[in-house]
Order: sequence, then structure tokens, then C-alpha cells
Amino acid sequence: MIIDRLIEKINETGNPTVVGLDPRLSYIPSYITEKYFAKYGNGPKAAAKSMLKFNKKIIDNVCDIVPAVKPQIAMYERYGIEGLKAYKKTVEYAKLKGLIVIGDIKRSDIASTAEAYSDGHIGKVNINGEDFEGFGHDFITLNPYLGSDSITPFLTDCENYEKGLFVLAKTSNPHSGELQDLLCDGKPIYEHVGGLIEKWGENLMGKYGYSSVGAVVGATHKEQAARLREVMPHTFFLIPGYGAQGGKAEDLTVCFKDGIGAIVNSSRGIIAAHMKDDYKTCYTDERDFAKAARQACIDMKNDLRRCI
Amino acid sequence: MIIDRLIEKINETGNPTVVGLDPRLSYIPSYITEKYFAKYGNGPKAAAKSMLKFNKKIIDNVCDIVPAVKPQIAMYERYGIEGLKAYKKTVEYAKLKGLIVIGDIKRSDIASTAEAYSDGHIGKVNINGEDFEGFGHDFITLNPYLGSDSITPFLTDCENYEKGLFVLAKTSNPHSGELQDLLCDGKPIYEHVGGLIEKWGENLMGKYGYSSVGAVVGATHKEQAARLREVMPHTFFLIPGYGAQGGKAEDLTVCFKDGIGAIVNSSRGIIAAHMKDDYKTCYTDERDFAKAARQACIDMKNDLRRCI
Repeated sequence: MIIDRLIEKINETGNPTVVGLDPRLSYIPSYITEKYFAKYGNGPKAAAKSMLKFNKKIIDNVCDIVPAVKPQIAMYERYGIEGLKAYKKTVEYAKLKGLIVIGDIKRSDIASTAEAYSDGHIGKVNINGEDFEGFGHDFITLNPYLGSDSITPFLTDCENYEKGLFVLAKTSNPHSGELQDLLCDGKPIYEHVGGLIEKWGENLMGKYGYSSVGAVVGATHKEQAARLREVMPHTFFLIPGYGAQGGKAEDLTVCFKDGIGAIVNSSRGIIAAHMKDDYKTCYTDERDFAKAARQACIDMKNDLRRCI
Repeated sequence: MIIDRLIEKINETGNPTVVGLDPRLSYIPSYITEKYFAKYGNGPKAAAKSMLKFNKKIIDNVCDIVPAVKPQIAMYERYGIEGLKAYKKTVEYAKLKGLIVIGDIKRSDIASTAEAYSDGHIGKVNINGEDFEGFGHDFITLNPYLGSDSITPFLTDCENYEKGLFVLAKTSNPHSGELQDLLCDGKPIYEHVGGLIEKWGENLMGKYGYSSVGAVVGATHKEQAARLREVMPHTFFLIPGYGAQGGKAEDLTVCFKDGIGAIVNSSRGIIAAHMKDDYKTCYTDERDFAKAARQACIDMKNDLRRCI
């Protein structure tokens, strides 16, 4: 079970941190961007090549101290096909370096279409009897709005290829409550979703008490996370919203049981650490930018471990 | 306003049909696939090239009798980067032929990420002061589960670039009710979403009484569609589920007002018409497959016009 591998890697590194690989051009040191813009001219190709180079340096510097990375595909789709090529190579490189890759793709569609997404992202596509892998993620994120039959095709591939999911339950953004907090039959929508997620994971239980079907639970809503921890005892949490979005380590204690149960994402806080005052003074050479990311992972580990 | 252009094209063609460009290899005549598999070997590249060739033939044969096409990006993501290249070229070719393109991408994420999706799909990405277009859709579909702040970045691009959205309200799949039909404050979730969609469209009103923020409303739920027509008087409907999924023209009457108000999608029913008994006998040469698609568009037009 991929969830067991994730838990084991969290235990090995002692670090429930996932590095959000959501690069923006403004984060990338000029020694990288200048090279590619000189080589390819101004445009998506040079931007994408810069992002990939940036990601590789980050991955090299964090791969032994974190269990996983979570590239956000939107940051690459922004640059069209060139961006998506950089995305795919980022996934490949992270896996090569032993990291678990959570593709943050938040896809959703009816069953026949979900099958196609699943083929491309966690499964394989069969062409004339031969199987081909697409993006090859270990986990992907999904949106639950369409209900169970939109999730089932992914569950099949999770079983066949040892993959996992994180389904949105309660997101970290300010307006997440508009639909997710609406009360139906005495409980909010996100709890209804929580119940479904538990059910979707039933046939994918790992040996540590968690299934390979996890939930996205925002760090910005402490009471709601506590409630979800209760109603989803077998569901591992992927927690966005720590750091830049305002979520604090103290608020996350409720998401863990016996020191496990969740992995916490930070994007800007790690990959743009070199631009923050705390780290800028330590790493004055722009080529050392990824050392700041490494230190940010260690600092985040220490911050989280105080509270779990 | 793009919604005005869509309505005018529906009126010009007299046809509220949108052709779902969701190709599968099994639909593609062997004279196409054999050529590409011989040239590129077995794999995603040959599959993607076959899909593009197939789409172009369909587009050539329907572009004067339908207003729009709706490629489903999942069918291309299934083949990874090669598939996405074929997707992009399909969008470009359809626009070149004067068709409105609805990218069925169903994306959703928090605001800062939604901005990146919007840049890539309907807006432009700014690189060193210069703007570049990504997929260049006219409309895209979105998932509302994250609430208003996840939609706002797209609304901005709709204003800036004259683009439109179709947001999922009530989907056509069997389990759509699991979350969408839950009752909150006396009305189902899909109605809450309907209210939000009306609001999101307020600043994007066109001259025919509809805004450029439409709703996806499944053809498989007649009563619910009727209710949504009432609570969303300014919202244009994109209706999936006609034909292969079981939706009938009679059930769609409720979605229209004065003959406009909705566009109805058919995918398999049109692009795989050459495989159906009704058409197989008319078009015995496999090179005529797209003539069957053309006839299916005419037949669908006649079927719909009986009822609106």
C-alpha cells in the first residue's frame, strides 16, 4: 500500500512535511532565468525550463529530509504544453530521488471521463495491448463534488498500481465554507464528504490503520479538522494552508494520532525561503537558494514536532 | 460578450448542439490509425496524432452547422504530453474554423492557484512584460466546491479577454445526487450553487439576457433542471447527458426560454455515429466517417427543435 510507504518515509525522516513545488518565475534566481531566456528567447519554453531547473535544485537539497513533494499542476498549465513538460519531468526527477509524489491536480468528472484521467495520472493507458504510463504520480488530489461514481475508476487504479488519493474534504481558502460548511441533516457537507472518503478507502487499508484514500483538510480551520479527525479515523490527512496561508503548527495537533495521521504542505514557505529575511542573511549567494529551502524544511519539522 | 457570440451562432445555425470532441482510439477508422502507428510505432504519439486527424475531419464536416465544440481534456491527458499537444491543436483548429470552443476541464483550486489555471486556459501569462496565450479556450467548465474566491480569478479574465465559464451545478452522472442533492436550509446544494452562479455572472451580462457565466446542468434530471431554470434566469445552460447517457430532447424543453437558454452536448452520439447501425449503412467507406457525424448533428438539431 502506498499509504504505508508514505508513513514509513515520514517515520524515517521524522518529518511530516511535504514540499509544495509551485514555482513562480519571481522565486527563481536570475542566474537560472537569464541562462534560459538567453537560450530560448522570451516565452513559455524558457520559463518552463527555468522552473524545472529550479525544482531539481530544490529536490536535490530536500530529498533526504522530507518524505514527499506536491507539485501543483496549475503552476505549470499556466505555461501551456511547455509548462506541462516541465511538470512531468519534475515528477520523474522527484521519484528518481526517492520522493513520494503527490500530484495536486484536483480533477473530477463522470465515470467514463474519470477513467481517462486515472489512466493518465496514476494508471496506465492501453494502446493496442501495450500499457503506457502518463504522469506516473504516487498520489493525486481529487474533487468530490460529482460523488462516488466519479471516484470509483481511480480506486480501481489504486488497487491495480499501488497508488493513492487525497480527496478534498475541507479546503484552506477563505470562502471554502460557502458550500462545504452548509448543514445537511445536522452535519456540514465536509463531514458528509468525510464519510464518503472513509468508505472509498475501505478496500485500500494499509498496515498502520490508514487507507490509501486520504483527505485534504485545510490547516486554517482547527475545530473542523478536529471533528474530521473523529469521523475519519482511517483517513490520512493532507494539510494545506500552513505558513503563508496562516495555519499554525499548534492548530494541527488535532490532526495527528500517536504522532502520525497527517502530512503538512508548505510551498512558498520552503521553495521561496531564500527570499525571506530569516534566510536571506544566511544565504547571500543566489546559487545557494536551495540551501534555504533545506533549512526551511528542518525548521518546519521542528515546528511541527513540537505539536504532534 | 462571448455569451452573445454563442447565442448568435446558435441562431445562425439554428442548432443548439455542441459536439463533444472526446475521441477514443476505438472510434477512429483504421485508415487513420494504421498510418500513424506505422509512422511512429505503438505509443501515445501515434494515438494522439490519430485523435487530432480524426478531430480535424469531424470539425471540417460540422463547422458550418453547429455553433460550438467541447473537447474533454481528460481524453487527451490520458495520453500524457502527446495527448495534450493534440488537445491544443484541436482547440486551435476548431477556432480557425469559426467554432466556439468550450474546454471541458472542470478545474478548481484556491485563488492563487485558480489564477494560474485561468492564465493557462482563458487568460494570458505575463512573462517579462510580454503576454502569452496558453490553451486559448472561449469557455471553460469549472467545479464550484471551493466557493467564490476560487472562481473570482476566472471572472477577471472573462472581463479582460471576453471569455466565459460553465460552472457545474447539477451533473449528469448516476451518483451526482450524493452531495449535490443534499438539502440545506430547505434547498438542495445544486440550488445553492445555482444562486452563486447567478451572482458570479452579474458583471458579465450580455445583450440577450444571459451572462457569460453559465451552468452545467445534466439532461438526466428533468425536474431539477426545471427548478434551476427558475432560480437562474440569467444563466445559460450547458447540458451534458443527451443521447448515450439517456437524456431525451423532451426532457430539455424546461431548460429553454423563447427558444434559447441552453446548448446541448453530444459526444459519442456524433463523433462515433459512423459506428451506429443507423448510419453504418449510409456510409460504408470508412473515409466517410465524418459525414455520419454531420448527419448526426442534423438529426440532433431536428430532434431538439421539436422540443424547444
